[in-house]
Amino acid sequence: MPIVELHVLEGYGTDEKRRLHTALTDAVRLIVPASPDAITVMIHEMKAANYSRDGKQRKGAPALGDAGEIVRAFLKTMEAREIEAAEAFLAEDFAMFFPGAQPMHELEALIKWATQRYRFVKKAYLGFDVMQSSGPEVLVYCRGTLSGEWLDGTPFENIRFIDRFELVEGKISRQDVWNDIAEVKAGL
Amino acid sequence: MPIVELHVLEGYGTDEKRRLHTALTDAVRLIVPASPDAITVMIHEMKAANYSRDGKQRKGAPALGDAGEIVRAFLKTMEAREIEAAEAFLAEDFAMFFPGAQPMHELEALIKWATQRYRFVKKAYLGFDVMQSSGPEVLVYCRGTLSGEWLDGTPFENIRFIDRFELVEGKISRQDVWNDIAEVKAGL
Amino acid sequence: MPIVELHVLEGYGTDEKRRLHTALTDAVRLIVPASPDAITVMIHEMKAANYSRDGKQRKGAPALGDAGEIVRAFLKTMEAREIEAAEAFLAEDFAMFFPGAQPMHELEALIKWATQRYRFVKKAYLGFDVMQSSGPEVLVYCRGTLSGEWLDGTPFENIRFIDRFELVEGKISRQDVWNDIAEVKAGL
Amino acid sequence: MPIVELHVLEGYGTDEKRRLHTALTDAVRLIVPASPDAITVMIHEMKAANYSRDGKQRKGAPALGDAGEIVRAFLKTMEAREIEAAEAFLAEDFAMFFPGAQPMHELEALIKWATQRYRFVKKAYLGFDVMQSSGPEVLVYCRGTLSGEWLDGTPFENIRFIDRFELVEGKISRQDVWNDIAEVKAGL
Amino acid sequence: MPIVELHVLEGYGTDEKRRLHTALTDAVRLIVPASPDAITVMIHEMKAANYSRDGKQRKGAPALGDAGEIVRAFLKTMEAREIEAAEAFLAEDFAMFFPGAQPMHELEALIKWATQRYRFVKKAYLGFDVMQSSGPEVLVYCRGTLSGEWLDGTPFENIRFIDRFELVEGKISRQDVWNDIAEVKAGL
Amino acid sequence: MPIVELHVLEGYGTDEKRRLHTALTDAVRLIVPASPDAITVMIHEMKAANYSRDGKQRKGAPALGDAGEIVRAFLKTMEAREIEAAEAFLAEDFAMFFPGAQPMHELEALIKWATQRYRFVKKAYLGFDVMQSSGPEVLVYCRGTLSGEWLDGTPFENIRFIDRFELVEGKISRQDVWNDIAEVKAGL
Repeated sequence: MPIVELHVLEGYGTDEKRRLHTALTDAVRLIVPASPDAITVMIHEMKAANYSRDGKQRKGAPALGDAGEIVRAFLKTMEAREIEAAEAFLAEDFAMFFPGAQPMHELEALIKWATQRYRFVKKAYLGFDVMQSSGPEVLVYCRGTLSGEWLDGTPFENIRFIDRFELVEGKISRQDVWNDIAEVKAGL
Repeated sequence: MPIVELHVLEGYGTDEKRRLHTALTDAVRLIVPASPDAITVMIHEMKAANYSRDGKQRKGAPALGDAGEIVRAFLKTMEAREIEAAEAFLAEDFAMFFPGAQPMHELEALIKWATQRYRFVKKAYLGFDVMQSSGPEVLVYCRGTLSGEWLDGTPFENIRFIDRFELVEGKISRQDVWNDIAEVKAGL
Repeated sequence: MPIVELHVLEGYGTDEKRRLHTALTDAVRLIVPASPDAITVMIHEMKAANYSRDGKQRKGAPALGDAGEIVRAFLKTMEAREIEAAEAFLAEDFAMFFPGAQPMHELEALIKWATQRYRFVKKAYLGFDVMQSSGPEVLVYCRGTLSGEWLDGTPFENIRFIDRFELVEGKISRQDVWNDIAEVKAGL
Repeated sequence: MPIVELHVLEGYGTDEKRRLHTALTDAVRLIVPASPDAITVMIHEMKAANYSRDGKQRKGAPALGDAGEIVRAFLKTMEAREIEAAEAFLAEDFAMFFPGAQPMHELEALIKWATQRYRFVKKAYLGFDVMQSSGPEVLVYCRGTLSGEWLDGTPFENIRFIDRFELVEGKISRQDVWNDIAEVKAGL
Repeated sequence: MPIVELHVLEGYGTDEKRRLHTALTDAVRLIVPASPDAITVMIHEMKAANYSRDGKQRKGAPALGDAGEIVRAFLKTMEAREIEAAEAFLAEDFAMFFPGAQPMHELEALIKWATQRYRFVKKAYLGFDVMQSSGPEVLVYCRGTLSGEWLDGTPFENIRFIDRFELVEGKISRQDVWNDIAEVKAGL
Repeated sequence: MPIVELHVLEGYGTDEKRRLHTALTDAVRLIVPASPDAITVMIHEMKAANYSRDGKQRKGAPALGDAGEIVRAFLKTMEAREIEAAEAFLAEDFAMFFPGAQPMHELEALIKWATQRYRFVKKAYLGFDVMQSSGPEVLVYCRGTLSGEWLDGTPFENIRFIDRFELVEGKISRQDVWNDIAEVKAGL
């Protein structure tokens, strides 16, 4: 039965509202064992003139982008080695943590490091999980399998991976990567 | 400014409400760039007699447990090798996916498999991330570092790991594990 | 999807709330083609101190009785010829309109009149329909079949009837009766 | 003091809202002894994008027609013997129950039957009572007096009648008729 | 944390809403010791068709003017001795109460009386305080200092004054004046 | 028709709620020309566990005292020359502004100054006007007439006065006084 009402300043589009509907529904489902069909969300949009804090009329702010889509777009530029485009997704203090590598802060460093591991790699996605952390970071988990070619040209595939991203204000500030590459190599 | 109102049948405790406050606040923050301090949540509890669907008065259901706490408790029993206690956390169709191992369905199988990899292992946690998926599963991501002893008795530590759990109705139905053990071993 | 919220001063019991849930649900269904299961009603009870008009805190009034139950009880006393008990259900200006009879204002007059028509009569009910009119009257329609004995002792049964009652402030102020007695007699 | 708030998907016209105001006001009055002037109804219209169940944005459905008006229009076509037009008001499983007649399912059958009773008949209406039943049926009670000519050409008038209609999804599925025709004839 | 929701018929402009935001915020602050920044006001505008009392759809009325602005404009016309313009601000039963004067009902009488006190006077305002009384009157307090010339041409300044105005339906019905003119004169 | 809903943490008594009802009603009346009888206020009390900002459950604070009552009590102690009791009502930075006197900060200074003006003085009150300013100050206007004895023992009465008080957090921080004493003396 839970009914959620959200009062928010107007200015959000249908897709942004869809994300609000989903996020609020899922928030309730995390605690209340109601069937999703019994969870109603109503968004009440307020004109700026109709809302005040401290007696002062307020304006809304544009919605944050869909962090899952941002990460997906970033990974696509990386796979295509479009470094400049990829860098546009990154926060100032970006850091990457890959298996067996020192922390890296530059995409160029990552690419250089990767050249010692495989000729190329592609990701097939099994799923993206997106959530707001209790801090400023939005978290995106992305998992699936890797395929590509080792340095000697032999192909590989079906190697499990998971990436964890932190985004702040729509920019990627951290990427942690885990995968079974070493496990697979050890078995070769 | 966003204000969230949740109408829900009465019967939830202060801690369960705290989880609702947090989850609803974070749901809004995922899309609306408001400072957390400006996000208000009001929970309106309904007596059963005051709520109806189809004209019929309704009763509420007990809250779902905190999935993060459930996973934490499960991992504690596993670390202590309290297999019976650990099994109580598992769903009927439980499955585990470990690096370099076939899918396993029994904790005994896992323990047997592990005996070929290390004498023992302990987890130090860096963080738990909990979210409701769009399906019935609640997801728990748990990450940190492993320490322990290899089969030859030499110690290891600071090996990164991440676990992904799926819970359905409070029971763990799936565990996916990634870590740098092979990476580290390859470097020995 | 319709959601109805009723704000009302506290003091109503579970059964009175059930009647409110039903009446509000049905009110919506009269216009909105939603499945009943998708119609939610929430009753918000207000303490007297929390509600004001003209800045003055207000008190609630006891609920009106269930008009269908009142009529049913009245008809029971009539069938048992408990005239005094029956009269307690009537408003000052009570009037009855029976087929082929002048308007009557006294139950004694009705009983006298009936003695020229049948020895006794019993009602089997097919249904009660209760609604608030746009005026002060609550309307109760009661229909079913009559059985009994004619003046000559021959029995009759399955004669259709319908009664229409008007109640004001819980008292019956008018009863209109239609039935097939003359039709049946004409066919004898 | 009762205040009713209805949240409903947008798309209803002023007249449909008027019906909602009336129906909700009367629903409250059936139980709460408030003066009608103290009953407030607020309709909150929701854009489709702002409402969800199960996280899915929803669309509204057109309002049901005014059952009283439908019955009134049906009776007008019947009085004018516009059988084809009248049939358009009927549900598939339509049934009629007239005094002294077998159940009928076709308007032609009714007209044929009536030719044995009177040359013609007209209805003068005293009132229509419309309500939603607890089932799918909307009920319309229509009462007044009949006038016309008997088969021998002598006129009659002021004969009481009451009709009870059941409508499902705007179509008339059942008509029950009671009147004093036999009573009056018996008195001729 | 207090959150105020105002449901009101649509038709008010941004500035009128601003006055509502301020008045409602200040009303709460009079009793609840919340920081103004934590007081939220939401104005929900209702279309006429969406609001009813007694089941009847209602229309709104134009907002009352800002009483502070009305008094300010009145005082400006008085200072400029635009008597006709000033009289347009007055209610039928207007009355003035000045120090050392009989009650006056005509601006001309005031002006005549003033000619025996000073050549001219100007007001410098320190502040306007506006409030709704519990009766029909809106109260405006206006205070500051007077400057001008005595009858002998010597200038004066910095003489404290306070005016209290009562307005009914936007018209000034009463003005009470206090000042230190006599005090200052006594000290000359 | 305006309907005001106030959501506030629980903990206020009936009298404090009465003040909220009155203040909110009057706030609306300042702008909306509705008859007071058509203005409804509903106070929704929230349990601390049911309300959050930034996801954190919050507690309420005790209501502010009635500033009109505070000023009335202060004036009573002053009239009785209970200086110690009177001082308990004052803020640290208290200042008084009397006609023909320098600003004073100590009640003793006021009393000493008054001994040069009259033997004693009593206030008869015509009315108290209380309002929240847009700043932290609550304003209390108190007006009426003075009676007492001049220094030579002759009595006086019916001298108009008005006091303006500012209170911050329940303490009087400023008192401005105007009256016709000098005007009256000049006429002696």
